[in-house]
Amino acid sequence: MSGSYPFTVDPWSIGLSGIDTSQLMHRESVFALSNGHIGWRGNLDEGDPRGIPGTYLNGVFEEYPMPYAEDGYGYPEDGQHVINVSNGQILRLLLDDEPFDVRRGTLARHDQRLDFRAGTLHRHVEWTSPAGRAVRVRSTRLVSLSHRSVAAVRYEVEAMDAPVTATVQSELVANEAIPDAHPEARVQRTVDAPLDGVEHVVLGSAATLVHRTRTSGQGIAVTMDHRVATSGSTDPDVGTEVSADLARTTISVRLEPGERLEIVKFIGHEWADGVSVAGLRDRAEGAVADAVRDGWNGLAEQQRARLDEYWACADVRVDGEPKLQQAVRFALFHIFQAAARAELRSVPGKGLTGAGYDGHTFWDFEAFVLPVLTSTAPHAAEQALRWRHSTLDHARRRARLLGLAGAAFPWRTIDGRESSGYWPASTIAFHLNADIAFAALHYVRATGDRAFERDAGLEILVETARLWMSLGHHDADGRFHIDGVTGPDEYSAMVDDNVYTNLMARLNLDGAAATARRHPDVADTLGVGPDEIDQWAATASAMTVPFDAARQIHPQFAGFTDKQHWDFDGTSPDQYPLQEHFPYFDLYRKQVVKQADLVLALYLAGDAFTATEKERAFAYYEALTVRDSSLSAAVQAVIAAEVGHLELAADYLAETATIDLHDLHENTDAGLHLASLAGIWLALTAGFGGMRDSENGLRFAPRLPSQLTRIAFGVRIGGQTLHLDITPAATVYLLSDGPTRSIRHFDETLVLSPGHPTTVPTPPLPAVGPRPTQPPSRAPRGFTAAFAD
Amino acid sequence: MSGSYPFTVDPWSIGLSGIDTSQLMHRESVFALSNGHIGWRGNLDEGDPRGIPGTYLNGVFEEYPMPYAEDGYGYPEDGQHVINVSNGQILRLLLDDEPFDVRRGTLARHDQRLDFRAGTLHRHVEWTSPAGRAVRVRSTRLVSLSHRSVAAVRYEVEAMDAPVTATVQSELVANEAIPDAHPEARVQRTVDAPLDGVEHVVLGSAATLVHRTRTSGQGIAVTMDHRVATSGSTDPDVGTEVSADLARTTISVRLEPGERLEIVKFIGHEWADGVSVAGLRDRAEGAVADAVRDGWNGLAEQQRARLDEYWACADVRVDGEPKLQQAVRFALFHIFQAAARAELRSVPGKGLTGAGYDGHTFWDFEAFVLPVLTSTAPHAAEQALRWRHSTLDHARRRARLLGLAGAAFPWRTIDGRESSGYWPASTIAFHLNADIAFAALHYVRATGDRAFERDAGLEILVETARLWMSLGHHDADGRFHIDGVTGPDEYSAMVDDNVYTNLMARLNLDGAAATARRHPDVADTLGVGPDEIDQWAATASAMTVPFDAARQIHPQFAGFTDKQHWDFDGTSPDQYPLQEHFPYFDLYRKQVVKQADLVLALYLAGDAFTATEKERAFAYYEALTVRDSSLSAAVQAVIAAEVGHLELAADYLAETATIDLHDLHENTDAGLHLASLAGIWLALTAGFGGMRDSENGLRFAPRLPSQLTRIAFGVRIGGQTLHLDITPAATVYLLSDGPTRSIRHFDETLVLSPGHPTTVPTPPLPAVGPRPTQPPSRAPRGFTAAFAD
Repeated sequence: MSGSYPFTVDPWSIGLSGIDTSQLMHRESVFALSNGHIGWRGNLDEGDPRGIPGTYLNGVFEEYPMPYAEDGYGYPEDGQHVINVSNGQILRLLLDDEPFDVRRGTLARHDQRLDFRAGTLHRHVEWTSPAGRAVRVRSTRLVSLSHRSVAAVRYEVEAMDAPVTATVQSELVANEAIPDAHPEARVQRTVDAPLDGVEHVVLGSAATLVHRTRTSGQGIAVTMDHRVATSGSTDPDVGTEVSADLARTTISVRLEPGERLEIVKFIGHEWADGVSVAGLRDRAEGAVADAVRDGWNGLAEQQRARLDEYWACADVRVDGEPKLQQAVRFALFHIFQAAARAELRSVPGKGLTGAGYDGHTFWDFEAFVLPVLTSTAPHAAEQALRWRHSTLDHARRRARLLGLAGAAFPWRTIDGRESSGYWPASTIAFHLNADIAFAALHYVRATGDRAFERDAGLEILVETARLWMSLGHHDADGRFHIDGVTGPDEYSAMVDDNVYTNLMARLNLDGAAATARRHPDVADTLGVGPDEIDQWAATASAMTVPFDAARQIHPQFAGFTDKQHWDFDGTSPDQYPLQEHFPYFDLYRKQVVKQADLVLALYLAGDAFTATEKERAFAYYEALTVRDSSLSAAVQAVIAAEVGHLELAADYLAETATIDLHDLHENTDAGLHLASLAGIWLALTAGFGGMRDSENGLRFAPRLPSQLTRIAFGVRIGGQTLHLDITPAATVYLLSDGPTRSIRHFDETLVLSPGHPTTVPTPPLPAVGPRPTQPPSRAPRGFTAAFAD
Repeated sequence: MSGSYPFTVDPWSIGLSGIDTSQLMHRESVFALSNGHIGWRGNLDEGDPRGIPGTYLNGVFEEYPMPYAEDGYGYPEDGQHVINVSNGQILRLLLDDEPFDVRRGTLARHDQRLDFRAGTLHRHVEWTSPAGRAVRVRSTRLVSLSHRSVAAVRYEVEAMDAPVTATVQSELVANEAIPDAHPEARVQRTVDAPLDGVEHVVLGSAATLVHRTRTSGQGIAVTMDHRVATSGSTDPDVGTEVSADLARTTISVRLEPGERLEIVKFIGHEWADGVSVAGLRDRAEGAVADAVRDGWNGLAEQQRARLDEYWACADVRVDGEPKLQQAVRFALFHIFQAAARAELRSVPGKGLTGAGYDGHTFWDFEAFVLPVLTSTAPHAAEQALRWRHSTLDHARRRARLLGLAGAAFPWRTIDGRESSGYWPASTIAFHLNADIAFAALHYVRATGDRAFERDAGLEILVETARLWMSLGHHDADGRFHIDGVTGPDEYSAMVDDNVYTNLMARLNLDGAAATARRHPDVADTLGVGPDEIDQWAATASAMTVPFDAARQIHPQFAGFTDKQHWDFDGTSPDQYPLQEHFPYFDLYRKQVVKQADLVLALYLAGDAFTATEKERAFAYYEALTVRDSSLSAAVQAVIAAEVGHLELAADYLAETATIDLHDLHENTDAGLHLASLAGIWLALTAGFGGMRDSENGLRFAPRLPSQLTRIAFGVRIGGQTLHLDITPAATVYLLSDGPTRSIRHFDETLVLSPGHPTTVPTPPLPAVGPRPTQPPSRAPRGFTAAFAD
């Protein structure tokens, strides 16, 4: 995104004045509303102009045969792509015979504002038609956190200085044309108009469209109903018509100056496998009837109450840069929205804010987003992990197909089946299985949720442990190796003994062993006996962790540090991202890093490294890392902070915080990057808070960079909340009700009593070496510059 | 192929009695006729029953957008697939009102015979219709070696014991339905009915169809004309009709018993880029008019004369196993057919005998087939190398796209543009560039063709040398490494310092340097000065050749011998070919070899190894090599013979000799495997003849296995023919006219005078170790068993 920061800076909302039609796609992502079940992009009420129309239902997708130029054993047969379902956002307005369109007439005011506490998107427009009719239009929309299937819009039209006939066409539209939904022409055809109408009906004032996706065969029912009022003397005319792909309620009224028409539109969205058309229709109508009973005010109050509850635990206070404060809450709001009511569905990489990445979920959900949810919305974290657990049968079948034991979770998927089309960067990125296992272990430590551990967590751990046992092998010296895998860095592939993968597999095996020993009865039902547990523990101990003794550096994988260095001096700034300008083979065979890999190991498996090793490794990999992935900056912030480069950490935090708001990767149009939004939280809590979680408990090492005067946040520990209030000189720890808890503050153990703040000073910063350098043109922009615009 | 050898055993032909309609596709490949420009599969004259109809014109293909599940930089955009052009084979016969069909009535005789000396396919049928009309049908077809565009059929119908009205519908058919032309549905649609009719005309008695391929836009004109005679008293009725996709000449005559109808059908096939419809039509008609002037007898005489000339030089005499003798000549006939008149077009992996491999040419043409042509049909070898030279612009563009200097020839192509869809086994199999360079060096040594060397050979060598210089890099010790490539073995990929690749690159660099020094004036026009030449030579000297000192084995590539061994004991015989039952990543990360790779280096770059190293390496790789590729057995035969395992070499020779005739890989239906046919010649000459060619000259080490009593063949040396006659105790060398030549016989240098046979004894076989073993179930079937059926 070029130009200065377009948004109004406010601690609890994000607003925009005026409208730039060339930026619509970006704004629609920023202003998207969701509850994890429904996603509404921030399209304009009147439907035109439009960037990318988007109404998504979590789990609804179309499938298509995956195209391969050359087929291979084990290649997934079917691809999945999230689809735009029947769109209930549309409220077209006509003033006399003139359609309201922001591109015509005179727009005296156009304000939009996403309110993080109210959970609503507001819009305020003052517009004079080419014929001279002036109106004020105010709309507020919400996707309900309390009614899972419901979205609602309050839409007001006020005549300003002359009488006008206001006509509103409120619609449900199926099979809207979507521009460039997919770069591959065949997939585009598949997801173009993917809905077959199976029923359309008006019952009372409510209209319902029922469709079925053409290939995946999923049934979807969407109902709308309206409550209409006017402050004027004339009663509005209201009528509803319906056809296969269109339901329309037309509301028309004569308004004198100062008179208002108020419409509340309630939309219910239902889908399920194995439910009849009549059943879906009735569920959608029932959801709307419920919402109508609560009314707009009821929905809005429930929305605020649910968010008050969330923020009480989730809020992060950051003093020193108002745009950063706004970015943190923007991020936390979207993360919560994405997962709140997902309830045994996956959470896509873009949430439900766009169709980017085909609507798929990836490993970064568990590695980046889930820790945030675990501390801020643990019920949503649990549901997300239980969704993974529910897909174990798919993962077991995938493992078997690959000749492996246990379960191999999919690299990218909507419903749990592997949908990746390029195996060197997907199938063999087996680390995702350990990432899921690690998220489950962390969730249990943070929440103390033993029911989850017994019901779901243990089985995830057991099946992933079995995967590692079959994937790796012991050498003649008894060391365990994992060959032919791809780590997090996508500029390497098919490598042996990737340090991140091996260390995470070790945590996975140890975690499986410890958990199985804690629940021998459940383990027994999974066929796990003492011998298997002992093998896991022994294999974890025998895990190879390559080390380049000559350079005193952990190589990203065996042999990495011996490879040729990428010719950074010969690479021009416009040749980034590298993958768009160089063939994979050339990236793969040289020392160049797309995103934190060894550095991610320094964070998530930090106990495996000494402080000196971390410092040296960080500097080494900084010089190789180009951050062509949005996942990298946050992790670099975390380790920069740990090794004492606080200003560099602040620069990376600033980059992470602006990835979507400044559209740094030029693809926020297709949806927000949930993982880099989560990265803001990670950079603050794990970076400047120094928070590390392991089986040895929670540890903090809080230090602020010069630009920040205070960071305050809460995390979970054994089901209690631990609140930190960090200032440059000291940190105040406050534990919520429950037993006492031990944590570490730097190298000191603190025993915290609930309700009693404990204040501890920040130790002096040890001497640090020179600031590590990045490849030419790849240094972060800098904290000040990032927020200066 | 199950069952016993179906063919009649004859030294100069291959015949078949009876017809098994379930085997039609295989027989059509075996009985295919070609001249390198036109290919006719051995379809039955009457068109039905059919396996796969096939009429191919070298260079005519349809293109389609390559489908990728996930796109990547440098992926080829367009695929190419050879198409079935207008088919002039069809001569449908009706007897009274009964169509002749081998599946109906009574078939008293059905013989087919491909004659290697006449260059014709004969058919002799005696058939009684369900209505009791008995006829004798004899057809002979040829694809002319003397008239590049012409095929012809002599077709005779004789009434046997009752009068009958014989009606022949002789046709050209465009856009025939082809069963399962391509496994990918979209490609199938592309190549299904790929021809748009642009003109159809009858002029005199000749009918012409002109078409254009829908996407690639190539123009094709096919003309047919007929000469009709009868031994009876009634004149035949003859009439011709034509429409866009069908031309038909109908010939009808009443035959009394013993009377014959004789039709000679002449078909001309033309295509060219940038020639008008009228131009193509006139060329095709002109070619047919020429052929009609020569008449059937003229064509047949020219055909035999051309083949007599070929066999005089090309024939290989093998005593001891008649089926092997037949197989050798079958192979040499098809190799000659495939290339004889290709004339600046590629020679596909299947020749023009089927549409397998999409009609693409691969590295094995230069590595396996070209040496055979160089010794047997040097003009065809030269033309094939000049075709590669003509594609240098494509190869230079490809190199630039990949960020490399020089030229990167395509892994698979029809017209010189890369058409591969899976880069780990194509784009990065850079060895093909050295294979082409090596073939050019060998061609010049064998023929002394300095004109080619100056015009084309040097530029190929220069551009491939430049590729290697940019692809590899010097390490801190000054050693040159080539990282991230794939060698010949397709069960490994993306490896560092593949020994075969590095040694062939070394030969390439040395060859480029030597050739450039021989022609400094031409080198200068290519921008090559002394410094660049010196760099090539220095880099060749610095080439890394990994050696596992602990195991005293050359690893296939750096680190290969440290990898996990494939679990052969856990692999069942029905899990071969492995690539159809295991994912690539698992094959790639373990010690398992699809096809000779290090062993191919032992052959083509044998000077880099000591005899002991060869013996050890051969045994080591034998235990890992599964021969899932048809390219492997011949190379294993060559090295088995060199290291003294003559019986094992004979077993591999037998396997190579039966790959197509016994359909060992179950895909001969889609065409013959030219490279494994060439492998028969290589196993005999380089295997039992011990022939090696290098810049140090020709060397032989002839030894026969117990099953063979004599092998005699000719090879080229500096433009002369050197004939070897090998018997168990001695070899007779005879040089054709020209200067004296030195060769080596084992370790002895012989100076041969033209016209004077030199007889030298075979030295005693040194002691050899135990016969190397292969993975379970992967031992070759054995010489005796292979030929026993």
